Amino acid sequence: MQTLTAEILPQTIRQRPADSYKGTYGRIVLIGGNQNFGGAIIMASAAAVYAGAGLVTTLTDPSNQGSLHARLPEAMFADYHDDALLTSLVTGADVIVIGPGLGTDAPALATLKRVLALVTPQQTLVVDGSAITLVAEHRLTLPAVPLVLTPHQMEWQRISGIRIADQTEAANRQAVDRLHATVVLKSHRTEIYTATGTYENPLGTPAQATGGMGDTLAGMVGGFLAQFSDPTHAVLAAVYSHSAIAEELAQTQYVVLPHQITEQLPAFMKAHEAH
Amino acid sequence: MQTLTAEILPQTIRQRPADSYKGTYGRIVLIGGNQNFGGAIIMASAAAVYAGAGLVTTLTDPSNQGSLHARLPEAMFADYHDDALLTSLVTGADVIVIGPGLGTDAPALATLKRVLALVTPQQTLVVDGSAITLVAEHRLTLPAVPLVLTPHQMEWQRISGIRIADQTEAANRQAVDRLHATVVLKSHRTEIYTATGTYENPLGTPAQATGGMGDTLAGMVGGFLAQFSDPTHAVLAAVYSHSAIAEELAQTQYVVLPHQITEQLPAFMKAHEAH
Amino acid sequence: MQTLTAEILPQTIRQRPADSYKGTYGRIVLIGGNQNFGGAIIMASAAAVYAGAGLVTTLTDPSNQGSLHARLPEAMFADYHDDALLTSLVTGADVIVIGPGLGTDAPALATLKRVLALVTPQQTLVVDGSAITLVAEHRLTLPAVPLVLTPHQMEWQRISGIRIADQTEAANRQAVDRLHATVVLKSHRTEIYTATGTYENPLGTPAQATGGMGDTLAGMVGGFLAQFSDPTHAVLAAVYSHSAIAEELAQTQYVVLPHQITEQLPAFMKAHEAH
Amino acid sequence: MQTLTAEILPQTIRQRPADSYKGTYGRIVLIGGNQNFGGAIIMASAAAVYAGAGLVTTLTDPSNQGSLHARLPEAMFADYHDDALLTSLVTGADVIVIGPGLGTDAPALATLKRVLALVTPQQTLVVDGSAITLVAEHRLTLPAVPLVLTPHQMEWQRISGIRIADQTEAANRQAVDRLHATVVLKSHRTEIYTATGTYENPLGTPAQATGGMGDTLAGMVGGFLAQFSDPTHAVLAAVYSHSAIAEELAQTQYVVLPHQITEQLPAFMKAHEAH
Repeated sequence: MQTLTAEILPQTIRQRPADSYKGTYGRIVLIGGNQNFGGAIIMASAAAVYAGAGLVTTLTDPSNQGSLHARLPEAMFADYHDDALLTSLVTGADVIVIGPGLGTDAPALATLKRVLALVTPQQTLVVDGSAITLVAEHRLTLPAVPLVLTPHQMEWQRISGIRIADQTEAANRQAVDRLHATVVLKSHRTEIYTATGTYENPLGTPAQATGGMGDTLAGMVGGFLAQFSDPTHAVLAAVYSHSAIAEELAQTQYVVLPHQITEQLPAFMKAHEAH
Repeated sequence: MQTLTAEILPQTIRQRPADSYKGTYGRIVLIGGNQNFGGAIIMASAAAVYAGAGLVTTLTDPSNQGSLHARLPEAMFADYHDDALLTSLVTGADVIVIGPGLGTDAPALATLKRVLALVTPQQTLVVDGSAITLVAEHRLTLPAVPLVLTPHQMEWQRISGIRIADQTEAANRQAVDRLHATVVLKSHRTEIYTATGTYENPLGTPAQATGGMGDTLAGMVGGFLAQFSDPTHAVLAAVYSHSAIAEELAQTQYVVLPHQITEQLPAFMKAHEAH
Repeated sequence: MQTLTAEILPQTIRQRPADSYKGTYGRIVLIGGNQNFGGAIIMASAAAVYAGAGLVTTLTDPSNQGSLHARLPEAMFADYHDDALLTSLVTGADVIVIGPGLGTDAPALATLKRVLALVTPQQTLVVDGSAITLVAEHRLTLPAVPLVLTPHQMEWQRISGIRIADQTEAANRQAVDRLHATVVLKSHRTEIYTATGTYENPLGTPAQATGGMGDTLAGMVGGFLAQFSDPTHAVLAAVYSHSAIAEELAQTQYVVLPHQITEQLPAFMKAHEAH
Repeated sequence: MQTLTAEILPQTIRQRPADSYKGTYGRIVLIGGNQNFGGAIIMASAAAVYAGAGLVTTLTDPSNQGSLHARLPEAMFADYHDDALLTSLVTGADVIVIGPGLGTDAPALATLKRVLALVTPQQTLVVDGSAITLVAEHRLTLPAVPLVLTPHQMEWQRISGIRIADQTEAANRQAVDRLHATVVLKSHRTEIYTATGTYENPLGTPAQATGGMGDTLAGMVGGFLAQFSDPTHAVLAAVYSHSAIAEELAQTQYVVLPHQITEQLPAFMKAHEAH
């Protein structure tokens, strides 16, 4: 297992070419946020916007429209119950993030199934949170597309069948290869399993142990994938940046709020871009 | 009566263990906020989140969903009229705070009764604001669970039967022992009655004399109880922190807004954590 | 005509007594904000809260509930169509501000009439914006209670019958005495007519020439009246503070937003309180 | 083609006369923001307010009322489906901005047609975003009024018939003259075609390549037009300011959020006003 270092940042975060426009940095849709967990998809969407994704649309319950725009006018909104709109937006996206605050009820399952049926190999799909639980519980087949899963240890147990105590590198690797996915296995020392390597994130602070951290990471992963050409680098750099910013904030804060990490992203990325 | 000092802070606020996750810091539900007093439960919930509680859910009137998430995406939302959801969330919580902005009408009474019936000795119940008035007016029996009451002097008169002018330490102690509760009796010099001792908070400023201060304190008490092992210390440290931050802000402000205290919490707690 | 100076500030803004509570600083209700002008009553309410009023309730159109709490959880909300609630809140208030964003349609007129019928000489009524226009257009009789009007020059023309070009001190004084009101006549050099004197505000900047300034001033006037014992001083100090803060901000801003004045209030008042 | 320099700023941004009021700085209405793109019209409206327009009204879908006021209480709201209200507001405006987040469906088309029929030569009309696409697709006749179009290159292709690769100065000039409009042709080096000259904006950074930048520029153009006497200068200064602020922020940010540009406007304009 390789330990991530700050070198992943300039390897990933390139100086933007002068002659570029918002389309250059990708179209991303984020799907989640039912009536109870609207904050989750708002936090994920904000992370994607502040990471620099070109065009961000949030597919969520209509009850979240107002709070989304109150916090984040830069994101577009769509009602995830509107199948025609969902189909059009998912089809037109470069990156799809599904899961933050999606919930596990029947409509959530239907939405997830619809998205799994729509995605194509030209797109990247990030499956997070309750979407992982749904995949596991309903034994859904993941599509043969570029795939990133961002489970915490219990969600990983559900989808891999490996109990938390048995989640060794070797056991995880077997499951990862079976899933044909990049897996971000979140714990106090997050591990990232890609097709070709395994990485440990040396950073992370218990000040991050609060609701919404994972939603924010999922949005960052999506935002990095939307704009950086090497998907492995994008995932590794997103994970590293998330923790590095949190550690910085934790120098002076007992707890770090997820939205605070997001707000630091533009400055952090600038400080670490390649030249 | 003992006078609280800053020593209560490092006695309570411990350096977080590296290997911890959001579950380590407790599940808290906050119940309140009718159509008129939504701000109260938003302020209480924000205080719980910024204090570092692991997972925070706000049970409130559905008209408050949007403003809750616009201010605080880190909190989850539930409609407090949905009995199945309320039952599930209250049952799964470590700490329940009821009262901020709850009101005193019939639905509020019904919600309060339901919660009083659901809580178990493994949980801690914080009863604040209009919930105290309801208990007093309807002579509700408080459950035999770890209990914290946070009345101001008039609410204390209602529930203890002791008129404000007669609220001496001795009289209060008798009522406290009868209630089997920790009581935070709010005034310009707040007193805290625990099972084993009585404490006076030497801090506090008239700049705090504004609506929402009590709601914020209730949320902080809940947030400290959710994550710190000694409940007496948790309550004492929350009261002390609330006033200490207010005094700091009042150096340069004629009035201190409740949400400003909340925003200072992460830095204040970091500055006073034990090592 | 006397020119106001900074001396009005310490004459008005007294160090708060240690043994005070939110009731000490007054109950204020602000009435306005129809479906089109919700921002006006939000800005007025925020000014009252940040000025230090003890308990602030906003009576407005229900469509403004969410945005009010998203910006200002410290204020309580009530639907101004709910007559029982309006009656109870107005009856229980020390200060009533009516007008910001109220509009001039039939429901607005009905609300205004209801409030004019409810107020008593123990209360102070601030009439602002469209409420002034309504009084003038419908020749409503102003009640015999402590009364503050905050017209701009065109509104003053409507209610006094004096055309803008003819609004001399002498002419204004006659109308003021007939109205038995304190009048804040807003222009680039605002004049204040009280029962016993006439004052000119020497401050004010064209950077303030933007929508919402008057709403913010009305809320400040209400907030000062709610907590300071001398009503003339309260009005004078509110007017002076509003412009003084604006001038400070205008040192570095081409335009000053009303909400920015509000956010500076607590620090400004602290810097100028008496000792 | 002339290259813009910072000299355009003091040529445009004049010290405000002391004896001015909000009416001096113009009435502007911004029309757009359907249920999916509410953020766009919120960002445009905020830019107009922070640029210093005197009175700003946002005509949008009613689902955006709450988020508009949560972010921007200084703007007034109107439901763009309410024809009587739209007619009255458009008729009374000095500047009308139509397009940000308007969408291209049938109701959007109907709204646009209505506005095109209402405007008069005493007003200035800014046509942005999807309104440009609608004009092109439905071959709408633009009214003979002072007109500003703010297309990006693809929108310009649609309305001018010139393919992106063929958008030379000479070709553009012909189309501009045919349209009798000032055209802000947005790209990484924005060009401005006025009746009498052609200008290139030398500023701009790829950190701006994110959703909402154009909406913010449209609002700034409207806000400058509302208050500055020379319309050509107003457009040129708005374009230059937008990029200059972005470049400043991009010194320390990898991506610049549109709302951050808006928040810098009052200070930027002050720093560059004429004396």
